[in-house]
Amino acid sequence: MNVAVMGYGTIGSGVVEILRVNADIIAKRAGVPLKVTKVLDLRDFGDDPISSLIVHDYKEIADDPDIDIVVETMGGVEPAYTFVKAMLESGKHVTTSNKALVADKGAELIRIAREHEVNFLFEASVGGGIPIIRVLDKCLTGDVVEEITGIVNGTTNFMMTKMTDEGSEFDDVLKEAQSLGYAEKDPTADIEGHDACRKIAILTSLVSGAQVDYQDIPTEGISHISATDIKYAAAMGRKIKLLASSKVSGDTYYCRVAPYLLPPEHPLFNVEGVFNAVFVRGNMLGDSMYYGSGAGKLPTASAVVGDIVEMAKHVHMNVYLEWHEEKLTLADPKAQSFRNFVRTSADRSEIESIFSDLQFVDAGISGETGFVTAELTESEMDEKLGKLGDKVLSRIRLG
Amino acid sequence: MNVAVMGYGTIGSGVVEILRVNADIIAKRAGVPLKVTKVLDLRDFGDDPISSLIVHDYKEIADDPDIDIVVETMGGVEPAYTFVKAMLESGKHVTTSNKALVADKGAELIRIAREHEVNFLFEASVGGGIPIIRVLDKCLTGDVVEEITGIVNGTTNFMMTKMTDEGSEFDDVLKEAQSLGYAEKDPTADIEGHDACRKIAILTSLVSGAQVDYQDIPTEGISHISATDIKYAAAMGRKIKLLASSKVSGDTYYCRVAPYLLPPEHPLFNVEGVFNAVFVRGNMLGDSMYYGSGAGKLPTASAVVGDIVEMAKHVHMNVYLEWHEEKLTLADPKAQSFRNFVRTSADRSEIESIFSDLQFVDAGISGETGFVTAELTESEMDEKLGKLGDKVLSRIRLG
Repeated sequence: MNVAVMGYGTIGSGVVEILRVNADIIAKRAGVPLKVTKVLDLRDFGDDPISSLIVHDYKEIADDPDIDIVVETMGGVEPAYTFVKAMLESGKHVTTSNKALVADKGAELIRIAREHEVNFLFEASVGGGIPIIRVLDKCLTGDVVEEITGIVNGTTNFMMTKMTDEGSEFDDVLKEAQSLGYAEKDPTADIEGHDACRKIAILTSLVSGAQVDYQDIPTEGISHISATDIKYAAAMGRKIKLLASSKVSGDTYYCRVAPYLLPPEHPLFNVEGVFNAVFVRGNMLGDSMYYGSGAGKLPTASAVVGDIVEMAKHVHMNVYLEWHEEKLTLADPKAQSFRNFVRTSADRSEIESIFSDLQFVDAGISGETGFVTAELTESEMDEKLGKLGDKVLSRIRLG
Repeated sequence: MNVAVMGYGTIGSGVVEILRVNADIIAKRAGVPLKVTKVLDLRDFGDDPISSLIVHDYKEIADDPDIDIVVETMGGVEPAYTFVKAMLESGKHVTTSNKALVADKGAELIRIAREHEVNFLFEASVGGGIPIIRVLDKCLTGDVVEEITGIVNGTTNFMMTKMTDEGSEFDDVLKEAQSLGYAEKDPTADIEGHDACRKIAILTSLVSGAQVDYQDIPTEGISHISATDIKYAAAMGRKIKLLASSKVSGDTYYCRVAPYLLPPEHPLFNVEGVFNAVFVRGNMLGDSMYYGSGAGKLPTASAVVGDIVEMAKHVHMNVYLEWHEEKLTLADPKAQSFRNFVRTSADRSEIESIFSDLQFVDAGISGETGFVTAELTESEMDEKLGKLGDKVLSRIRLG
């Protein structure tokens, strides 16, 4: 069976490498040998053996009747969307690692695949090598999923781990992450939570069966987290982690991306560095967790190859995915309630005039006061923080 | 689509409960409503609503053309094997939670299912609600699996957790586990590692594609672990856990079930109580871990229902499973090497005359000496322990 790869960057080249190195075992599992016959890229690759397979026009793949499976590892919504749609309409199976494409166009591409009796899979779009998509779609199908909470961005988890272990400031850790290749030159999508937001939108769409628009999810990144916040976290015996989460509320979900202060007993407390993990609670299964490499060339490519094998085994059958185009209206995020940690320059009497049932936290920092609130809705919290005004130095939810 | 359940015990009744409570969402995911129409059990159930569905002869299910899917939750090899085989030969899909049946007859039943164009699935047979079978069979298919190490027996993990937390002796903790319903009246299968052994045989068969006979796997339980061993573990900053593990060696695997002393950085160190977890290393994916409820009525039944949904989606198609009847010859267990912890009544000079590169461990226990060996093959270790003879009080491998 012939495979084409669109986008010969980090992940695309990883897919080609895995199909070569593990060719024998993959052929046994797929029931048929898999061969990469075309690679779409704008560039040429000189002496690289891949250069003989390079094409510059996606139509050369769409129009090639010998290609059954297409891998999309270009990233971004366009032109990936146009290319992927053309492949599905040409009767080719497609797998993608592209979270932006899946979050934006997943439901539509699933429908188009179904109409053309092919498959559109996207295991690598969330959690890198962690098979969380297949777990939700193929395994926990007897359960109402009540909660999904994940560390789904390796860049920010690396940074929070470094800040926690070394007490460093955000900007210094960001520079280190960039020099190690863990953060991009423009790190906005990672550090402001946009990447995690698309991923939780995809996971929530899959368990609800409806379209969750990532634009509807309140998203807060980690760029405001300081070494002082970390000191308070340590004083509380907690760690700060950027979480993407969905919690069932009646027929819909509360969704949110934000940093949280986690206690040691939280299942994600020990997930360190660039690793990712997703906690899932089912109404029958109870608690479960899935942990692994959330990014990186080979782990992500491994997930793409898993999809290729799955499609090779279902070459004449659309595997039904319950994710439709009608929009899911999320629960009002202002009605969700949390305990909160707050740092303020206000004095204790002013704090106590606004918040009740609070607990002060002593981290040995002078000139400010840290405290933990009772459980409050986001609306109540907004109102109370409004009263403190610019005396609020920091606010982090407790997980 | 109609479902029959064979064996209305803990798990069978859980399956019926989940199909009722989560009926709507299951029907959406399966693409069709699922209805339990027959339940095989030796007993009658009086006023229980299930009593109208009870049949006492499995042929009433095998001969019922309206039943597409059969659940086997009876346990044991016979008569489950006879019944399951008859169902497959009658063109019915079968899912089972029965590890004894799968370890013994898995490859054959997979072949029979393929010959009759139906499916034989067994997600619930390992790890309860943890979807480890589907992860290995459907997700990590691009990888050579280099290692699987699991805590796959909740009873013994509960006991080891209690012994660690409370310093209690084995017999006291066993009594407590029995009174809580976590251990059976005859606890042999759990505490001697036979249950874990069948589970690692199943997982190794799945990743190798060949038949791993559980009888070939060296299996040591936890019944010899004492409160004194736990004190030494604490002195080393380690915990003792019963692990079932497979490690690649050339074209085959070292398999073993035994208690191990794990350091805090080990991914399974924090898996406590009745929870299960399986660590998997792929040659491309790297490290991953899957964690959840390894037993219990609803978690296990949730895995069975996941199989039912998968079979409902593949009612006209055999999903290829790479597990054949030819036997895998495991790597010689005597050639596997470990560091080992040993307690002995021998004196230091005698110990040092036998073992080199050793480290003594002080746990404040008088009348004996504890030490950790260098890495030694099992053969070398047998020979050296033979020299100490009956002065060996305890030996536990390091993980």
